[in-house]
Amino acid sequence: MANLLKEGEKIILLFKVNEEVYLGFKSTFRDCNPLHTNADFARNKGFRSEVMYGNILCGFLSYFVGEKLPDKEVIIHSQEINYLNPFYLGDELRFTAIIDHVHESVRVIEFKYLFENQTGQRIAKGRISIGLL
Amino acid sequence: MANLLKEGEKIILLFKVNEEVYLGFKSTFRDCNPLHTNADFARNKGFRSEVMYGNILCGFLSYFVGEKLPDKEVIIHSQEINYLNPFYLGDELRFTAIIDHVHESVRVIEFKYLFENQTGQRIAKGRISIGLL
Repeated sequence: MANLLKEGEKIILLFKVNEEVYLGFKSTFRDCNPLHTNADFARNKGFRSEVMYGNILCGFLSYFVGEKLPDKEVIIHSQEINYLNPFYLGDELRFTAIIDHVHESVRVIEFKYLFENQTGQRIAKGRISIGLL
Repeated sequence: MANLLKEGEKIILLFKVNEEVYLGFKSTFRDCNPLHTNADFARNKGFRSEVMYGNILCGFLSYFVGEKLPDKEVIIHSQEINYLNPFYLGDELRFTAIIDHVHESVRVIEFKYLFENQTGQRIAKGRISIGLL
């Protein structure tokens, strides 16, 4: 795959933050913090409604790496994420990953990525490093 | 909470990687990469069996922050994770978080954390920074 993906190349995906994702995350990980489950609590803290779990975005990263690269023989080495703005149920997030470095000798590819919502607001950004198996 | 949590303090949790978590993550995020879903593929790549999704650990981080701190009025600012060894269905992971810095003026707490499996092997480590709402 190091031959297929070049530095500067871009992959764009859309992720819908629907009930299936929200409730699936909640029931899998049992995080019932009121910021994520109680609209009144969230509004009292200045948010529009329940704030979605930031780690839903890490599930989307899993899908990106596992399903949307030209090679399936990959594994995540490391990742980081910076949360910039909250996102909400019903948002449609545009994910852009750019290949930052291809280390062919050690078969490692590093991406920078950004999640934006449907209004173009930046939701989160970070980096992810994957290895070719 | 900045008063409740002191630098150097430690929080330890146990997380069982059971079918509920594995299948819940898979159905929520639809990552069907064969490394995570096909035992023969994983064995051919040198693993013991299907490798669990690394981002399951980020779901456990969500639970830690949302449910296991003395204050519920928290939000994640950023996090990073380095995957050190694979983990498998049935593993019981010991999670240790240590408070690295408390920035009282900006109401931010930084943790270092480590996941180890039931044999003491290091599975992943990283940092997570949270804000008090």
